Amino acid sequence: MNVKNAEIVSIGTELLQGGLVDSNSLFLTETLHGIGIEVSYRTTVGDDRQRIHQVLRQALDRAAVVVVTGGLGPTKDDCTRDALGDVSGGPLILHDETLKAIEERFARREVPIPEVVKRQAWVPDGFVVLPNRHGTAPGLLWEEGGRLLVALPGPPREMRPLFTEQVLPVLLRGAGSARRIRTRTIRVCGLREAQVEERITDLLGTEHPPVSLLARPGEVHIRMTVCGTEEEVESQLALWETRVRDRLGEAVFGVDEERLEEAVGRLLRLQGQTVAVAESCTGGLVAHRITNVPGSSDYFERGIVSYSNRAKLDLLQVPFSLIEQHGAVSSEVAVAMAAAVRRLAGTDLGIGVTGIAGPGGGSEAKPVGLTYIALADVRGEEWCEHRFPFDRDQNKLWSSQMALEMLRRFLLKARTEPS
Amino acid sequence: MNVKNAEIVSIGTELLQGGLVDSNSLFLTETLHGIGIEVSYRTTVGDDRQRIHQVLRQALDRAAVVVVTGGLGPTKDDCTRDALGDVSGGPLILHDETLKAIEERFARREVPIPEVVKRQAWVPDGFVVLPNRHGTAPGLLWEEGGRLLVALPGPPREMRPLFTEQVLPVLLRGAGSARRIRTRTIRVCGLREAQVEERITDLLGTEHPPVSLLARPGEVHIRMTVCGTEEEVESQLALWETRVRDRLGEAVFGVDEERLEEAVGRLLRLQGQTVAVAESCTGGLVAHRITNVPGSSDYFERGIVSYSNRAKLDLLQVPFSLIEQHGAVSSEVAVAMAAAVRRLAGTDLGIGVTGIAGPGGGSEAKPVGLTYIALADVRGEEWCEHRFPFDRDQNKLWSSQMALEMLRRFLLKARTEPS
Repeated sequence: MNVKNAEIVSIGTELLQGGLVDSNSLFLTETLHGIGIEVSYRTTVGDDRQRIHQVLRQALDRAAVVVVTGGLGPTKDDCTRDALGDVSGGPLILHDETLKAIEERFARREVPIPEVVKRQAWVPDGFVVLPNRHGTAPGLLWEEGGRLLVALPGPPREMRPLFTEQVLPVLLRGAGSARRIRTRTIRVCGLREAQVEERITDLLGTEHPPVSLLARPGEVHIRMTVCGTEEEVESQLALWETRVRDRLGEAVFGVDEERLEEAVGRLLRLQGQTVAVAESCTGGLVAHRITNVPGSSDYFERGIVSYSNRAKLDLLQVPFSLIEQHGAVSSEVAVAMAAAVRRLAGTDLGIGVTGIAGPGGGSEAKPVGLTYIALADVRGEEWCEHRFPFDRDQNKLWSSQMALEMLRRFLLKARTEPS
Repeated sequence: MNVKNAEIVSIGTELLQGGLVDSNSLFLTETLHGIGIEVSYRTTVGDDRQRIHQVLRQALDRAAVVVVTGGLGPTKDDCTRDALGDVSGGPLILHDETLKAIEERFARREVPIPEVVKRQAWVPDGFVVLPNRHGTAPGLLWEEGGRLLVALPGPPREMRPLFTEQVLPVLLRGAGSARRIRTRTIRVCGLREAQVEERITDLLGTEHPPVSLLARPGEVHIRMTVCGTEEEVESQLALWETRVRDRLGEAVFGVDEERLEEAVGRLLRLQGQTVAVAESCTGGLVAHRITNVPGSSDYFERGIVSYSNRAKLDLLQVPFSLIEQHGAVSSEVAVAMAAAVRRLAGTDLGIGVTGIAGPGGGSEAKPVGLTYIALADVRGEEWCEHRFPFDRDQNKLWSSQMALEMLRRFLLKARTEPS
């Protein structure tokens, strides 16, 4: 197909009631834009057959490609299938293979099929059925007069592979010109947004490719977008990344989707080091993030969530007297936790985190958000203090972020020092 | 104004290139919905004068209120002002007070005014100017024939106060009647979306308030929306909630924003029970979720993330021989973990989770996603097996979800049984 512009239509009354981020249209916007197809409009409409029909008609009048998500579920409010039939003029017909796939899916799980689910096997005549490996509602594709109408189920984990595996090839086949748009994100930890901006301010001028800064909890993301041929975009992005890295040095921890815990995992693996974690206020979040990385069992030995003082004594041999003297939230206890978990686990490194996540438990001397993080290695321990001004969830997140960042900086330093 | 429905229009080419969440339209959707104005469509369009004009015309044909954000800045691509003039038929005229405000703003900062900034003082004739305390671009408001067109600058910290302080009063004044729209979400665990629908199918008919079902990892959300006076909506929602609860019984764990871990925490607190957790494949996520709840230290004693076999032996006294005989991922090991953590922590209940999160580590007999969850109390242990078909992140999430759900169901049962 020779496609230049596309429209995205998100369907679902829940999207018009607030509180839900429409992550599908974000994904589609980014992906279409990335292969050089301009997204000219994005529309959200409720589960209303007539309104959907009108929106689709208008979109097909304006754009070569229309991608629709949502409203393909089994329930009564899901009327996208009907609206697609209204657009194409085709009645809904039973698609035997889809019905069979649904039946097999339920048989495998040894679960009886609810009658409503079978509704998903009815598809508008004239549409190509795109089998869905991750759910019961198939994708639907209609080509007419050089235009493409694609409808995909709303759950992102079904929509994304369907789009990538079965729709993208159709679009790329047609894209014709070799013009590409590519985006690269450089991820930074340990600098504030304004500090990042100061250091790269001369790279933000109008004669440069567009760069945007995005502040995330404990991170700053620098996004660059360039366009040209495949070769041009690759060399431009490489040049840009080098320049940004020159300015920001070790503050850069990753590129694109790489998470801080992946950067930490990479360094641990590279240096053949192992780690164990003892945490109180983060309640398991540090261990959870470290173990989000596939293969982390190679370097992560154990985690202790010592929520009670008794657990601190039993599991980490932190004496009550130390807690009485300095308080459970203190550098002394963080250091004792880090040293103990390292020693008991037999790992190279140990992390200790103790703090007040809130909303209760704070005092004037030790307010909510106060957090101590310690790191132990064979030579001894170091620690740092943070005071986070956030709510419980965010205080936990920032504490875990700063613990991972402390570990990352330590590993980077270890790399350049004689041992 | 007597307004019933609204449309939101977001303007900005950058919104159609991916990577940016349109937080303005989320805010506006939620706020309008909250005061009883239905949002019927949401459209995103680039910085293109003609396209913006067409979108605004169409929106004004369909809705009583049209709220536009973005494209009011000083740069060349910002053409919302021109498009507003195209809609009203009024030419752009210089608004002296706005120019003065801009000049004063720059004088205060002792910065010379870039010529382009003055462009923001030109407004389409017939529009009311809404002064912007947080930036240079004012808001613009146009009333004609009972319809309201409002344009606000894109930066959220300028848009939000402008909307709340200067637009909302106009809408509320007009809302006249005390008509409200309220939404309630009933959260369900332990039933699939289709099972939920089957049980409440007769409540989904067209004569009833709109209900939508939403599948979330390990949960189903049932969202009801009703409208009427404050009293009417409250009594309708209460009636509806009762009916849905009658059908779904104990599968309902919470309402609106309540998380599964909060429901579990409430039951633990109510029954005066305490819990400790031993986890492998979830890597700390179960403990993390339990400790997301403020005050969870009252009932959560400790968490053990026994990632290595040595940690299972050291911390939970799970003998190597048991692991050799049955494998680390087995019901026997899950049971041993749950019983041990309960005994060692001195809690009423213990949870053990072991599984293969993937992507590596699976075999034919024990595939990725296989998970055993055990629960121990004073009378003994019970366990269950799950086979999740997801990726690592989702397998961890589902495992934690099913562990919390097992705990919740156990506590519900305990409540009704003689002890």
